[in-house]
Amino acid sequence: MELKDLRKTSIWKMEKLELNFSVDCVLFTILEKKLKVLLNRPFPEMGHFLPGGFIMADEDSDAAAIRILYQRTGVNHIFLKQFRTFTDPDRFSYAELFQRLGMEQQIMDELPLLPERVISIGYFALVNAELIHPTGGEYQENTSWGDAEQLPQLSLDHASIIKQALDALRRELYFKPVLYNLLPEKFTMPELQTLYEIILGKSLDRGSFQRKMLRWDIYERLEERKTGVAHKRPFLYRFNREKYDRAQQQGIHFAM
Amino acid sequence: MELKDLRKTSIWKMEKLELNFSVDCVLFTILEKKLKVLLNRPFPEMGHFLPGGFIMADEDSDAAAIRILYQRTGVNHIFLKQFRTFTDPDRFSYAELFQRLGMEQQIMDELPLLPERVISIGYFALVNAELIHPTGGEYQENTSWGDAEQLPQLSLDHASIIKQALDALRRELYFKPVLYNLLPEKFTMPELQTLYEIILGKSLDRGSFQRKMLRWDIYERLEERKTGVAHKRPFLYRFNREKYDRAQQQGIHFAM
Repeated sequence: MELKDLRKTSIWKMEKLELNFSVDCVLFTILEKKLKVLLNRPFPEMGHFLPGGFIMADEDSDAAAIRILYQRTGVNHIFLKQFRTFTDPDRFSYAELFQRLGMEQQIMDELPLLPERVISIGYFALVNAELIHPTGGEYQENTSWGDAEQLPQLSLDHASIIKQALDALRRELYFKPVLYNLLPEKFTMPELQTLYEIILGKSLDRGSFQRKMLRWDIYERLEERKTGVAHKRPFLYRFNREKYDRAQQQGIHFAM
Repeated sequence: MELKDLRKTSIWKMEKLELNFSVDCVLFTILEKKLKVLLNRPFPEMGHFLPGGFIMADEDSDAAAIRILYQRTGVNHIFLKQFRTFTDPDRFSYAELFQRLGMEQQIMDELPLLPERVISIGYFALVNAELIHPTGGEYQENTSWGDAEQLPQLSLDHASIIKQALDALRRELYFKPVLYNLLPEKFTMPELQTLYEIILGKSLDRGSFQRKMLRWDIYERLEERKTGVAHKRPFLYRFNREKYDRAQQQGIHFAM
């Protein structure tokens, strides 16, 4: 094969995959009162990975994130939000990966040209674990929820990607009402506060929290109170769907 | 040159540039009470571009953004914030660009292999126009401030990148005190409000604005009032530097 023929095929791609553009998906949930993140373990000889993969030639990264999350974990219909792109020249090396996986030098020499740098575009979402069902996807990978505060051994720079996704999620929390899917239809302020505390990783002052929440004007206080609790029965609230949707669109603080 | 030799050189790069990773810098300022954005016009036969370029083999995108902004515009020492990566497969085409610039087919056929997709990582900053001095950089490009609300003709997807950078800036405004560099040491609440209104592109209610601002607890009211104004002389404020730095670090709303 001569150089000029090669120029006509595209060696910037292999099997329609763009070998230097990947996406990584950070899917958070709350389980057993802890913040968890969905992990894959495609290679037993290496640590966990975020569900990730290469962008295809005809798709943008938003479409790639949805497809890859589904292929890797079986989880579908999730709105994933782009939060940051990871570009460190040393973050990923095909040669190093293949060596870690025990590939023989002779096979590596036969491989097509591979890029020296792979950048990864990070996406995150916060989901209700009861509504999604990770199956390991079509690759039948070992898929599990890891504890975001005490992560297991992770491959590549994926621990750092999770940390930055968590920063993005925490920031989103102050800006948009992202907890809708994690709450029952009717809920109490202490229940809402618990979710915030789990995600923020710290205790919040009860009075100050409630004042802030009510100032957002997206919750409706019902005439009912929670039953079956020992002491003072707290009021029940629900989202005002119209105001919630507007806040989702515009951000809470845009109502300046 | 045989394929196996080619494998040893890197055709994923040319002259140490990664030809499929670019950055674009959206530098905002306020001039003549309008929001402006810094533009280049490297080719008279095409519309304006954002100051942008390719990442080098040994740098990450943060370093590339700072270097490229300097090379293209002469502007240095700016903290640029990554806000979004643009990955549409059709957003950029070398062939199309070279055609637009009138390159002959024969020369194009002689070019080295070029990637079919170039993604761009967007960065933005809000700066004080009086403190920076765009010179056109080392490429001596036609550099000018364009009106963000009434942009001139832009090349590629750069109008869309600016729009999304503006969304990111507006969001930042509610989250961090980003206006420090745009205000004199002592300023009035109406002066602060005017900056917010210019960036947000809408009028704000005066009472509600002041209450929100003071609730952030980063401004100190001085015992002085503004002189030389016709009617009621408004109080002067200044940033409390310690509280400002903390808010910069943690975000304003993290003090929940």
